[in-house]
Parts: sequence; C-alpha cells; structure tokens
Amino acid sequence: MDKLFAEIITIGNEVLAGYTVNTNATFISGRLRENGIAVKWVTTIADEPEAIKQAWSHAGGRARIIVTTGGLGPTPDDITKKCIADFFNAPLEPNKQATANLKHFFEYRRRTAAGLNLDQVLAPRGAEILPNPIGTASGLIMRRDKRVFAFFPGVPSEMKALMTEGFIPWLKEHLELPAIHTRLLRTTGIAESRLYEQVRETVDSHPQYALSFLPRQTGVDLRFTFTESDEESLRDWLAFVASIRAKLEKYIFTDEERELHDVLLELLRGRGLSLGVAESFTGGLIGDQLTDIAGCSDVFLGGVAAYDNRVKTTMLGVREETLKKHGAVSEETVREMVRGAQRLFNSDCAMATTGIAGPGGATPKKPVGLSYIAARLGEHEMVREFRFGANNRRLNKLRGAMAAMEMLRRLLRQFPDDA
Amino acid sequence: MDKLFAEIITIGNEVLAGYTVNTNATFISGRLRENGIAVKWVTTIADEPEAIKQAWSHAGGRARIIVTTGGLGPTPDDITKKCIADFFNAPLEPNKQATANLKHFFEYRRRTAAGLNLDQVLAPRGAEILPNPIGTASGLIMRRDKRVFAFFPGVPSEMKALMTEGFIPWLKEHLELPAIHTRLLRTTGIAESRLYEQVRETVDSHPQYALSFLPRQTGVDLRFTFTESDEESLRDWLAFVASIRAKLEKYIFTDEERELHDVLLELLRGRGLSLGVAESFTGGLIGDQLTDIAGCSDVFLGGVAAYDNRVKTTMLGVREETLKKHGAVSEETVREMVRGAQRLFNSDCAMATTGIAGPGGATPKKPVGLSYIAARLGEHEMVREFRFGANNRRLNKLRGAMAAMEMLRRLLRQFPDDA
Repeated sequence: MDKLFAEIITIGNEVLAGYTVNTNATFISGRLRENGIAVKWVTTIADEPEAIKQAWSHAGGRARIIVTTGGLGPTPDDITKKCIADFFNAPLEPNKQATANLKHFFEYRRRTAAGLNLDQVLAPRGAEILPNPIGTASGLIMRRDKRVFAFFPGVPSEMKALMTEGFIPWLKEHLELPAIHTRLLRTTGIAESRLYEQVRETVDSHPQYALSFLPRQTGVDLRFTFTESDEESLRDWLAFVASIRAKLEKYIFTDEERELHDVLLELLRGRGLSLGVAESFTGGLIGDQLTDIAGCSDVFLGGVAAYDNRVKTTMLGVREETLKKHGAVSEETVREMVRGAQRLFNSDCAMATTGIAGPGGATPKKPVGLSYIAARLGEHEMVREFRFGANNRRLNKLRGAMAAMEMLRRLLRQFPDDA
Repeated sequence: MDKLFAEIITIGNEVLAGYTVNTNATFISGRLRENGIAVKWVTTIADEPEAIKQAWSHAGGRARIIVTTGGLGPTPDDITKKCIADFFNAPLEPNKQATANLKHFFEYRRRTAAGLNLDQVLAPRGAEILPNPIGTASGLIMRRDKRVFAFFPGVPSEMKALMTEGFIPWLKEHLELPAIHTRLLRTTGIAESRLYEQVRETVDSHPQYALSFLPRQTGVDLRFTFTESDEESLRDWLAFVASIRAKLEKYIFTDEERELHDVLLELLRGRGLSLGVAESFTGGLIGDQLTDIAGCSDVFLGGVAAYDNRVKTTMLGVREETLKKHGAVSEETVREMVRGAQRLFNSDCAMATTGIAGPGGATPKKPVGLSYIAARLGEHEMVREFRFGANNRRLNKLRGAMAAMEMLRRLLRQFPDDA
C-alpha cells in the first residue's frame, strides 16, 4: 500500500462564491499532518451530486484517506448522504447508533426531535458512526478496498469535534500511523532572513531534517517535523532542535501554539505582577489582545487609549512642553506615557505606544510607520524606536502591540527577580 | 458554448500542510462572481508536475475559465511555467513584454535584475502577458480551444493586482460577460431567522431573484444578484431590492462592503461630534476597531479600558456604592461608566461596556455572556442588557463592541439634529 496520503473534499457554495474562506480544510490538514498523514489535494465543489461523485472517484484513485465535509445537515440541500448511498451502493436505513445519539442529544437539551431532524437517524448501510458531541449530524466512515472515506458536517465547531474526538482516534486504532514528532519555535523581533542567517550552517549541515520557516504578521515560526525510525535517530533530531533553539533563544517566546500576549500574561501572573497600558496609535489593541485571555484580570488593571493629545497630558501627565518640543511621536513622549500609565494604574509594569500608523500623518522628518514603544518593570525602563514603514495601518498597529509586549517580556527575562 | 463556469487551482504546500488558509481562492471567486462567472470547483495541490497537469486536464474538461495561482516565482521550486510549457506544448522562450516589464520594475526601484530574476523574462510560446505592477512574475494567459487558462503568482498582493487590473479587464474585452447587478444590505442587531420572517412574504413571492442571507459573527448580510436581460426586468428587480430594504431599514447600517465602526465614524465626523469610550469586558476592542480607520482622530478622543474596579471608580467616577449594591456587571454601573467617559473625555458622545466574557466569572444570577451596554449622544442615553451566552470569549467581546456602536448609531438616527 502507498504512503498515507489524504485528500479533503469540501462541499460549500459559500466558499465557491467567495463569501467565506475555507478554514475547514486548513484545520483538517493540520490535524492529519500532525499524525503523519500528508494531504496532497483539496477540492471544493458545489452541492451537486455529479460533482460530488466525480470528486470522490478522482480522490479514491489517488489517496488512501478521503475526508469530506458539508451537506450532512437536516435540510433538503444536504445531499451528501444520498450521494454516499449512490456511490457506495449502500442504501440509507435507520442506524441504531445514530438513533441513540440523536435521542441523547435532544434529551440532554430537554427538547424533542421533530420533522427534518428525524432524517438524521438514517445512515448508509455499512457505515461506521462517529457520534457528534455538539450537533445532530453524525460523522460517517465508509471503507472501500483499503480506502477510508470519512464524512463530517460543514459547521466548523462540529467538524472540529468530530475530527479530534472521533476520527483521529479511529485512525490511530485502525491504521498504522507513523510516529511523527513535531516541534515549534515561535519567534518575534527578528526578520526571517536574519533568523535564517543565524542558523544557516546548522540547517545546511542537516539536510535530512524537515524545517520550515513560516513568517506570520508579527514574527516567524520555525516548524520541525521528524518521522521516527529508532531511538537513536530521535535523539539526534532532538539534539538538532536543541542546537537551533540555543542559537535563537533570545527571540523565542514560546514553543507552543500560543500568542505573545498569552505568554506574557502567564509570566506576569507567575510573578504576581500587575500591568497598566497607555496606547496612542495602537488605540486599544494591546488591551483587546490581553483581555482575550480568560483570567487576565489577575494581571491587567486597565489601559488608556490616549489618542488625543489632551488625553496624554490630563490623564497620563505628559507635559505640554514635551509635546511642543518633541512632538507626540517621540522618545520623550513615550517615556512620559509609560511612566504615567504606571502611576495612573499604580501597577508594577507598564507599556506605552506612540506612532504614525498611516497612511496620513507623516512629516518630512517623521515618516509613516515611525513609532516609539516603551515598557517598564518597576524602575527598569526600555524604550525603542521602530520604523514599521509598510503603508498598512492594521499591520503597523499589530507590530506596535507585539513590540511592546516583546519588550516587557525581555525586561522580565533580564530581571528575573525584580517586582 | 456552455455557461461561463470557472475553476481555480491553487498550488501551495502551506495550505495543504494546514499552516495557512486559502484566501486567494476566496478573492478570485468573489471577483469572478461579481462579473457573472460562477466558480464551480476549487482545487489545491502540491507543487508536483503530475498533480498540476492532472488538475488542469480535469478542469479543462469542465470549465471555460481556469485560473491557477502559485509557482511563478524565481526560485527552483516554482515549476508552473515548466508545466505550462509541457501541458500546452509551448516551449519557454524570452518574451518581449515580460522583458520590458522586468526592466521597468528594476529601473523604477533603482536596482539591477540578477541571477534567478532573469528567468522571469521567459514565457511559454503564445502566452499573453499581464504585467505585474508590484512584483517580477508576470501573469500569463494561454488559450486552448475556447478555454482560457490564466496563471498568477501566489503572493496575495500580486495576485490581487493582476486579477483586478489585468485579468478582469481582459475578460471583459475578450469574452461576452453577462451584465450582473449586485446589491448588499448589511444588518446588525437582529437574528437571521427573525430577519427572514420580516421579509419572507416578499422573498417567497419573487422566487426568480437570487438573495442570500449570510450570517457574519456580528450580523447578517443580504446579498442580491441579478443578471440583466432588459431595462424593464432591471427596474423590477430594483423595486424588489427597495421593498426588502424598506422592511429592514432599522437594521441596515450600510449597503457597502464596510464595517460598522467605519460607518459610525463617518456619521460622527459628518456631524462634527467627538467620542470617548469606557470599556470593561471589551478591554480595548472598540478603541482598536475605531483606530483602524485612517483619520479617526477627528472624532475619537480616547478610551479607558476599565478592567479593574478601582479604575472604574477613580477614573470614570463609578460610585463604590453602585458597585457594591449592583455589581460591576449591571445596568447601574454601565450608566455611570458612560456618563463618566463623556465627562472624562469632554466628548459629545460616549459608549460603555460591562459584561461577563466567560468562560469564568458567572454567578447564579449572572450567567456568562450577560452584558450591559450604554451609549450617549449629548443628554440622550440608551442602555441595554444582552445575553450573548455563547461560551466564546472573543465572540462575546465582538458582539459587545458591535452592540455599543449600533446603539450609538441608532441614537444618531433618532436624534438627527442633536449635537
């Protein structure tokens, strides 16, 4: 049998019309890849029986695992089950497990299944059922020759639950999946090309290892993948990862799928430190990011979006003289802002941003993208100038927020014992 | 010849690995749809010659227009041009127009083309060239029988420029595109099912018109599409759109592809009104959204992220007594917050939010998702209770921000002459 290749077929008119992005395929690809299964082909088609069956037929000729999403709901345009019955010559019939699942779903919610929902107990003959923990449409698995066809509803939350709780465990039980190891190093504050320069020698001398550099809007991810053959080869690979890590230590803020604001909050919470923020051109973005994390109130006391200069003077205590002499976008102003925030919120730490987000607002001496960012930990202060440059307001704001958080993270690293 | 169906083929390992979402396909689908061309099939494949040629062969058998993105860059893994040469039996040769474009690109940037970039002057024999305004890889068009194959680089900004400035005008010139009319009505503050109820009769009595209800995270879009046959039919359709519009007037905040914060800022600017914000559970999101719009400083003076209760009392003047008696998540508190914000920023308008974003923080009487939102225009005040409910912190914040802005928008509507 060939290597474990998979294909994904998403049935979805909204993707085809350009109204929505196909995040389902991305999610499924990622989970399969983590388990050593490479997705080679993703197809998106309309809910038309001929297209669906043609896609299955092509995919079945190329891949061993074929995952289809969409068209399993209760309304008349949900035609996937009828197509399965046709394609696999497996008539729809009431399925015991699907019936039990549906009953449980409605009992738990103290509602009664009615009308269209009753069709949800039907499944193609021979189908294995994957119970849907949060919806009425079960996941289905059909096997033909050595091929595995899996079918999920297109609602992202239901698809995700069925993939992680249902299909991945099923695959592990029924197929021999390779032992895949992955590592992630998430960096910020260094460009991809410079990052690469620093590790080039090590990377070039180990061409057998798969390592991807993946630029994100605010940093670069390094993703390592390794298929284990024996313990010694695994040890060698881990040593390779460790040597790359050592070279980039300063720029790595996590080795997990987490964002910097999450990592920073945890660091602050672990040391019992509180935080106040003063944002000019980021306008509230830092506060928004921090408050996306549950439990942030242990650390985050509050912030001021000091957009108007009067807010900078009256609330943060920036001196009129400083604004007049150096301008709102200056090192001097951001210093007074970060100190003002620390005082105003009576917090252990503080961050402040000021800058020209663009596209307007530039002067001959101050181009779009020029920004000053400050962070404080107790009496320790760090201030830096940035020239984000890109004529993209949102991106400049994201970079400014990231830079502020990275600076505070570095202060915490530099002074591990300070309050 | 059959109707104008199109297919999209994206060549991209990062999409297949699950690292990135296929936004290119969404963009291309949207632009084609607006011009009366329906995308029926989207395929994503790895950069492997056999897969690429197989995808073209299948697509050519089904669609009249086939758009391929990716693999046109200067590095060795960019194999699309070689595959084109093979598939169309059209050897690569230096192309005059591509050479002129490349020369212009480098002269403009005062740089010299070198090494790998020189390959960018090659094009398959017979290819039409679409100049790339922002990169070195030209777009290509190959015609075979009545089919049109277009090829773009995968970098989103370059692909977008080539689609809108190159390929769409080319299509209009070379094919007879139908006259397509579209209208958008963007609503918020009403659920899809209730929205539908209000217009059901009108919709049901006009089955000949295409109308989609597209739920977004914070509202529902209505998209109307119409292929014009004659003036009278167009007039009838416009009357249909107008009658739906009249029924939903209150909930519609724009008929353009714009967000509520953008619309709200414009309304405020048009009336010369200033704005201050007090955010508890939204944490800075409202300020962040408003400051994404260039020129917002005319209107937005600033905001307070009042996360900690002390910030609510010291900065916004919420009374200790109110917090003790009613709690931070209460109508009474949000009223004092919105008044405090208006006073603190000395602004014409103000908005305030308080709520339980979840997943923690609920009490027997106050479930996750319970929120109080307030808006003020001069002395006019609106306060509402919401139960967003969903156990999704980010979504609750987005809904809270949207509700605040929608309430201020309705106050502006209700009192069109007030400062």
